[in-house]
Formats: sequence, structure tokens, C-alpha cells
Amino acid sequence: MKKTLIANGTFITLDGTRPWLEGHMVIEGDRIVRVVEGSPAEDESFDEVFDGRGKLFLPGFVNTHGHAAMSLLRGYGDDMALQLWLQEKMWPMEAKFTAADVAAGTRLSILEMVKGGTTTFVDMYDHMNEVALAVQESGIRASLTRGVIGLCPRDVQDAKLAEAVKFATDWNGKADGRITTMLSPHAPYTCPPDYIERIVQAAHDLDVPIHIHMSETAREVQDNVDQYGTRPVEHLEKLGVFARPTLVAHGVHLTDEEIAVLKKYDVRVSHNPGSNLKLASGFARVPELLKAGVLVSLGTDGPASNNNLDMLEEIRLAALIHKGVSGDPVAVAAEDALRMGTLDGARSIWLNDVGALKAGMRADFIALDMDQPHYYPRTNLISHVVYSANTRDVTDVCVNGKWIVKAGACLTLDEERIKFEAQQSFERLTSS
Amino acid sequence: MKKTLIANGTFITLDGTRPWLEGHMVIEGDRIVRVVEGSPAEDESFDEVFDGRGKLFLPGFVNTHGHAAMSLLRGYGDDMALQLWLQEKMWPMEAKFTAADVAAGTRLSILEMVKGGTTTFVDMYDHMNEVALAVQESGIRASLTRGVIGLCPRDVQDAKLAEAVKFATDWNGKADGRITTMLSPHAPYTCPPDYIERIVQAAHDLDVPIHIHMSETAREVQDNVDQYGTRPVEHLEKLGVFARPTLVAHGVHLTDEEIAVLKKYDVRVSHNPGSNLKLASGFARVPELLKAGVLVSLGTDGPASNNNLDMLEEIRLAALIHKGVSGDPVAVAAEDALRMGTLDGARSIWLNDVGALKAGMRADFIALDMDQPHYYPRTNLISHVVYSANTRDVTDVCVNGKWIVKAGACLTLDEERIKFEAQQSFERLTSS
Repeated sequence: MKKTLIANGTFITLDGTRPWLEGHMVIEGDRIVRVVEGSPAEDESFDEVFDGRGKLFLPGFVNTHGHAAMSLLRGYGDDMALQLWLQEKMWPMEAKFTAADVAAGTRLSILEMVKGGTTTFVDMYDHMNEVALAVQESGIRASLTRGVIGLCPRDVQDAKLAEAVKFATDWNGKADGRITTMLSPHAPYTCPPDYIERIVQAAHDLDVPIHIHMSETAREVQDNVDQYGTRPVEHLEKLGVFARPTLVAHGVHLTDEEIAVLKKYDVRVSHNPGSNLKLASGFARVPELLKAGVLVSLGTDGPASNNNLDMLEEIRLAALIHKGVSGDPVAVAAEDALRMGTLDGARSIWLNDVGALKAGMRADFIALDMDQPHYYPRTNLISHVVYSANTRDVTDVCVNGKWIVKAGACLTLDEERIKFEAQQSFERLTSS
Repeated sequence: MKKTLIANGTFITLDGTRPWLEGHMVIEGDRIVRVVEGSPAEDESFDEVFDGRGKLFLPGFVNTHGHAAMSLLRGYGDDMALQLWLQEKMWPMEAKFTAADVAAGTRLSILEMVKGGTTTFVDMYDHMNEVALAVQESGIRASLTRGVIGLCPRDVQDAKLAEAVKFATDWNGKADGRITTMLSPHAPYTCPPDYIERIVQAAHDLDVPIHIHMSETAREVQDNVDQYGTRPVEHLEKLGVFARPTLVAHGVHLTDEEIAVLKKYDVRVSHNPGSNLKLASGFARVPELLKAGVLVSLGTDGPASNNNLDMLEEIRLAALIHKGVSGDPVAVAAEDALRMGTLDGARSIWLNDVGALKAGMRADFIALDMDQPHYYPRTNLISHVVYSANTRDVTDVCVNGKWIVKAGACLTLDEERIKFEAQQSFERLTSS
């Protein structure tokens, strides 16, 4: 089993013992075996020694909500309201997406994510075999789910659900365990209640979690009330969704009572501040969610509504905007935001051995070039990561004990080809 | 006069004719002589040819409010309320700052700014000779002002004002015209009315603008009402401040009537979204200011309250947060935010030949490496800059026709020495 030494590094461990330490980390196979101060004994031997001088190591970012293939539509329709943007720009284009387009867009997104320090992502989309193949090839970790929209005849609903079940079955635990799967009714407003119930039953049968959009916009909440007489949280509760382990995306418009329900069922919330701002969906009640003990993580959402896959930006937005909204300058402290983007992201998708640098955890970590002016002076390194750092400070990325990015270059993906093919897909989609 | 060709580039010109063009730009001395499609005639000769392939050129960023030396206190006291943070953390440490500390902190900030594409900045601080010397050496452009706090005996007030006047006189137009100067009563709450009036008189005598903090927090506005019976805008209007060309920093808490007064006097507002969020000061009414025709630009504020000097982050925040606050997804469109961070920043400090790429303008521009995944596909390049780009995409920076940064490295400043000296200053300040 390969044994790697990360020497002379500074480590933000998120192991709960101290903010950071200067020392070394040892990895054997896909696991961290130790992170301690100082240097190893002189007679200890390693297969690889990585010089960590001038670098700040931390757990890789975990992006808990997105639609990677939508990178093909980055910048195609900005500054529009959510429903209009979906109905006039996104959905007509997405309807044209072939499996090859999904492969091209997903590879472009994975390339951007790994270069930016994201080591795990959640993806809800279509043509998910292509997504799984890209995950397998790239070396990234992912929780994948075929999102189903049920506004269609019963036979089409059946076919979509069967496809989602087959995907969730085929790929769960694959790619050296880097892939896990979920089932996804797209949203309360895109799936009839009985279809949601059938998906929940399938999730029970497969023993996989549910991932669903919920309460992203005020309009969607009102529509739910108008159509079903209840707000989305009660609606989904009644349909039995929360009896499964559940990760909801957005959760912007929530009442105190709804937050209590989410807590009761241990529902996890993927907060997507960049997307919620850009689409003017509003400000999620993150301080209240955290206070209630709800597990909150961070997601970029699709790159067409963000428009990047920069998890440091989401971490910073999470640390900044809730101070502004609440008027409370201690709302969502820097360390809380960093944990939401790493450790709590992993916990949100039930990966309990990912997201911290300590013995026994998976070796999913990144290095930042802290030899840049914005990391000086050396005051509070967690503050520097959250409020000052830059995604392109990421130099090296390791997932499951394997290097994916070294010195800023992706080792597993052909960057030039990916950019070329994404551009080709976009041109074909807009010319047809 | 040196003649430089930027060949094969993509140019976001902000000249009002089209969003961007592919072609070439020619610079002679400190001026742009043309930016046009295609290539120059084969027989035209140049002293330097810069290959712009894969690069996106745009006007350099103009940071219209800050306190550069405060980089020494980056991360020293986060997540605190403004007054507490000022009184318990910042002011006691700043009181210890020597001229050498100001030199060290300012150089660190200028290094960060130029590497991140800022070509002009506004600085309000003390020991301003050190700041001017750093500007002169680095090649950046700046509008500088000795900020004076008047909560002191008359003789100290007199000495501070004399120093501010001397600085504004000595340095105006210096460093090949890269330095301009202003006078700065620090804020309505830190300067007695009669002292503000004397500073205004001095600004008349010198014919320089006024730069002042105003209406940053709700508490400060209420204190002004309690102490003087008026809100800050009316207070400063009565003191004659707005009879001078004036740039106010923050302007977070403004009524409709106050916005109308600012418009009437053509007062410019430096919007500092990152700082306002981090210190929980609130959301400036930028859509209303823009609608009223007030000239709004962007500033980072001091790096202790941000905590970086990343103008792309301020541009992005300006484009995002006002959508979230207003619920209007077309509030502050991408192009408006980019203009606020460039052309309108230059206009805000009365630099009418800076901030756009067109014939006759100063050659202040930057190049972004758009060969990164987050610039694909090639849909809307302005959207890509505002919503996707990363400050470390900046590869090259030119100010007044001279290269300051090339291939990511600063040519004019000794980076290693600057980081070392900033760290030393911080350690001395905290050990004494």
C-alpha cells in the first residue's frame, strides 16, 4: 500500500482539537493515518514525499447541490427571474441535450471543480451514466442522482423512475467506493404527489437517500399552498419523503415551524447562496437553521445560475451575507462557513469518513498556495481561507489517496480536449 | 515614444460601442491609440509585440475606498460590530503604527492589488508620504488623502490639517501624473462641525476634492441625529462639504431625500459591499442610487474589514447582493457592476481619461487568462468576468503604458521582501 508523507505543511484539520497545526500528514492507500506537529522520525520511509512548505492543507470542498452538465449554458441567459429563466432559456436548451452533451458539460464542470479544490460533489441530472463515467475517470468523489420531473404521462413517469432506480442500483459504491447514489423527485412543483410517493417507496426498497429541490422561491411556496393547501415542508412530510434520509436543496423560504420539522427528521439543507442571489430567490435563514441544529452545507447549484463552481465563493458568501441580513456581525462565523463547505457537506451526504484531516478519514484534501500577499500577515488562517483566499490558490488536490491535481494541473482529465468539446456542444446546441 | 502592440486579443473596451471585440490594441507612451478588430498592417512596426491569444483584456479595476496599510491587521479581530471592532481592535493597534509600518502595510496591499488587476486605488490614511512613495515605486495610480480625525485639541487639529494640506499640495500630479490628492475629514462622527468647515475651506483653497466616510452604520446616522439634529447628508450639506467635488465612502443608510441631495450636488458614492456585509453594516441602496443618476463606484475598504483587496469580488457582490435584497433579478446587471469597478470608478475620482479601452485614454489595462474552464463556453464574456472570473486569472497589468505585472509576477516590487517586512511589522505591533 502506497505511503505518502506531506512534510512541512500547515494543516487546517477540522478535527475539533485546534484551528490548525504545523507539521506533517501521512497517507496510506486511501486513508489518512496521522496529522501531527513536527517531522516524522528520520528512519521512517515513504513511497512519496510531498514538500508542503508554503502550503496550507485543508479538507477538500464538498459541493452538495448542482447540475454539472449545465456548464454548457454558463452565461446563456443572465439576469432573469427563476421561472422565466427556466422556461424560456434553460429547459428548451436542456431538452436538446444528448448524452454526449451531458458528458461534455459534466467533464467541463468536474475539471473546474477539481482545479478549484472540490473533492466531492452532488449531481442531480439526466443521462447520469455519462456523469458516473466522468466521475470514475476524473478521480473525484460524488453522490449522484437521476432527477425526475413527473409532469408527464404515467408510462413516461414509469420509465424515468425505472431509469433512476437502475442508475442508483448500478453505480452505488462503484469507482473504488467514490460514487454513492440517491433518488430525486426534482421538486414538489414538478412532481405530482403520487409520483413522489412512488419514488420514496423505491428509495426505501433500495435503501438510498432522497435529494430534492424545496422552497427555493416565494412563488413556488405560494403555488404549493394554492395547489395542495400546504407549504412544501408539510407537503413533503405528508408524502413520507422525510422518512428517508433527505437532502433538500435551497430551503430559502422557511417558517420557524418548518425549520423545526426539518430538524425533527434530520433533513439536511444544501444552502446555495450564489445561485439564490443571482436568481433573486432570497436569503436562506441559515443562522436560524444552524441555531435549530439543522445540518447545513453549501452548494453552487448548476453553473448556469451561479455562474461558476467556486466553493470558496459559496463559503465566503455564507460567511458574509447572513451578517448583512441579520445585522449581526457574528452570524455564521468563518469557521462555521468553512465547516459547511467541507466536513458538514460530507456529513450531509452521509459520508462520515470524509471532510476532516485526521487518522482514519479518507485522504480527500487540498493545498492552497499561501505564499501570496493576501495570506499575510499570519494572523488567523481560517479567517484568511474564508475571507481572503482565492480558488486559484489551490495547487494540489488529492481524493481517496490519489493525486488529481498537482501544481495546478489536472492529472486525470485532458483539459484542452474538454474545453474544445464543451465549446463544440454549445455551438451545436445553439445552431440547431 | 515606445509603441506596443497587443495582438490577437479579446477586448472588453467599455467604450459604449459594443460589449467586446477581437482584434488588437496599440499603445504609444502612456496612451491607447487604437483598439480595433483584426490585425495591424504587416508593414507597421512596433517596439514591443505582446501576444494576446487566450487572453481577455479590460480596463484595470479602480478601487475607490480603502486604507491600504490596514493589511497589517488582516484577520486580526473578525466577526465583530463596527464600533467595537474599531475601538477595541483597530484603533489601539493603529495608534502604534509607525511610518515604517504604514510603508510595509501599504506595499503589501499594493502588491496584492496590482497582482489582482487593480490599476488605481484611493487611500485615506496617515503617514501618507510613505503611501505616496510606495505608489511612485510600484507604478500603480492613486488618489491619496490624509484622513483626519478631529476629536482632539485645537493645536492637534491644526497640525493634522496642515499636514493634510502639505501632503495634498506636495504630491498632487506627481509620479508622472499618477498621483492625485484630496482632503479628508474622516467622518461626521469623528470631526466637529467647525473642523469640517475648515477642511472644506482648505479644499477650496487647494482646489482638491473631499473624500469622507458617511452613513456607514445605522447607529452612526442615529448618533448624528441625536448630536446635531440632522442626518449626515443634511449635516454635511450645511457644512458646505458638497460645494466641493465629493466622494463619500459607504453611503449605506440613505433616505430617498438624501439620495436626491447627493444627486443634486453630483456627490459620488463608493459602495463597499464586502466590508458592509462583513461588519454587518447593511446593504447600500445601490439600485436606487443608480436610478437617481448618482455615480456609484466600488471599494474594498481596508483589508482588515474585508479581508482582501479583490475588486472582482466587489464587482460580483455588487451584481449579486442587490438582486437578493430587491428580489429583482435584473437589479445591477453584470455590465453595470463591471463599469462600477472600472470606468465609473475612474470618473468618481475625476480621472476622465482612465477606465475604458479607446483611443486617447491612459493605457491602464489588465489581461485575464480566459483559457480556464470557467470561461467556457464562449457565451457572454462580460457575464463570465462578473460571475465566473477569478482574481488570480489576472496575468498582466499595465498602468500609464508601463507593465507592472507580467505573467503573474510583479515587475516593480520585491514580493518576498514585502511579505517578510509586513510579517515583521505585525509581529512587532503585537509584541509591544
